[in-house]
Amino acid sequence: MCQLFGMNSNTPNSVQFSFSGFSQRAGKTGDHVDGFGIAFFEGATGDEGEAGDGTELDKGVRLFVDHQSALLSPVAQMIRDYPIHSHQVISHIRKATQGRVALQNCHPFMRELWGRYWVFAHNGNLLSFNPRLHSAFRPVGDTDSERAFCWILQELAKNHASVPSIRELTLSLGELCPSIAEHGTFNFLLSNGRALWAYANTSLYSLERQHSFGEGLLADEDMRVDLAAQHGENDRIALVATEALTKNETWLPFTKGELRVFAQGKRVAIDL
Amino acid sequence: MCQLFGMNSNTPNSVQFSFSGFSQRAGKTGDHVDGFGIAFFEGATGDEGEAGDGTELDKGVRLFVDHQSALLSPVAQMIRDYPIHSHQVISHIRKATQGRVALQNCHPFMRELWGRYWVFAHNGNLLSFNPRLHSAFRPVGDTDSERAFCWILQELAKNHASVPSIRELTLSLGELCPSIAEHGTFNFLLSNGRALWAYANTSLYSLERQHSFGEGLLADEDMRVDLAAQHGENDRIALVATEALTKNETWLPFTKGELRVFAQGKRVAIDL
Repeated sequence: MCQLFGMNSNTPNSVQFSFSGFSQRAGKTGDHVDGFGIAFFEGATGDEGEAGDGTELDKGVRLFVDHQSALLSPVAQMIRDYPIHSHQVISHIRKATQGRVALQNCHPFMRELWGRYWVFAHNGNLLSFNPRLHSAFRPVGDTDSERAFCWILQELAKNHASVPSIRELTLSLGELCPSIAEHGTFNFLLSNGRALWAYANTSLYSLERQHSFGEGLLADEDMRVDLAAQHGENDRIALVATEALTKNETWLPFTKGELRVFAQGKRVAIDL
Repeated sequence: MCQLFGMNSNTPNSVQFSFSGFSQRAGKTGDHVDGFGIAFFEGATGDEGEAGDGTELDKGVRLFVDHQSALLSPVAQMIRDYPIHSHQVISHIRKATQGRVALQNCHPFMRELWGRYWVFAHNGNLLSFNPRLHSAFRPVGDTDSERAFCWILQELAKNHASVPSIRELTLSLGELCPSIAEHGTFNFLLSNGRALWAYANTSLYSLERQHSFGEGLLADEDMRVDLAAQHGENDRIALVATEALTKNETWLPFTKGELRVFAQGKRVAIDL
């Protein structure tokens, strides 16, 4: 199996502290050593689009993958050292179940749809999940996870003519997820740069941070950080992970089959 | 305008030496400071596919982009320090003509088609190039280059039912390129992991290295490397760049409108 980590925030935020703890699970506090990946959605400063409505924000993606473990990879080391500021982050450390240890099987996966990049990472194992992929999205590697991602994009492309609103997309995902989840463990993170979607049928936890920020104590490493010193009063940050990343904050477990969506650093309430 | 660099080889090869010289053009020997990118196609060891025919080779891609210059970017520094061994590399340093300095406008661009990743980088400036994009490939950023890439993939998807042979793909590209090139400067590198295609209507040079390897003297930096010590007798490497990267080897200029294809580290002769 694997481990997932996601972040959504209202101001560009660095995940060095969280990633530092998360990557300990790749060999030290966990055995997820078969590759890692992390994707950052980013927009340049002043990149609000001609309409000034923010529609151009966070269209760019930086995707780092390595078939080495997140503990030993020089790419992961650079990410721990180099502050990349982003509104949306999805990361994954892999313990292979289906598919070989190869770069094309490293999560997150990325595709373009309606002129937007979509990023997806999965924790779990889907058995006998071989949907008919008849449109523009085909797996490059041989994981159940990439198949699920391609199928989701194929179905979204049928349901919507262009990038749907956060609400519409959430409703579509709410319809699609159960038919995949019946094939096995299906916990995933998905983002198109506007929001972070998280679905779990076994294990995910989320946490929302806001003023006043306290201290963060990593669960996987003897490391603490003064969150108040790192954040402004108006900052809001939502974090999602397979297991709680800090031991002194209250992480909220997902119920079986629950879909949550986060935008601007907080959970968006949508009745499914 | 921008600068391009590509590599194709028959054995996994590191481009640290060439990239070190190439990245000097991002501020030192050139003014291409508006971002950079580099893509590596890689396959894991023993990754020859179930048929053992090599069809699974080089399906994975690592794509690094940064809107900082290749001289100052920590990502570029990691690439100069960390030997990534690959059969196919495409790199680009950007001086913005169309499109803002933003991550989504950094080359190379990547898309999936027929279960293969395709990577494209462009040097030039296309005027009034607004083809009808009616299929699955849409630009995320706002460059002429990404539009050209999306149009090429759209047309390839019409011409072929699945990944074409190197020869068939070369013939298709030979038909598509002139209609783009009439809109302005159009020099590009394209790869799907099996071969490297290079097209120029103003400036590209290529070089093939093989046994016996001599010494390489970078054109942009006071740096030399003993190529014979780095390579085995059977190694073959083809390099393509906007301007020659070394000053003691004979780089062969492209004629106007010429398309070259390289596989297994050497040029493939295909009559167009």
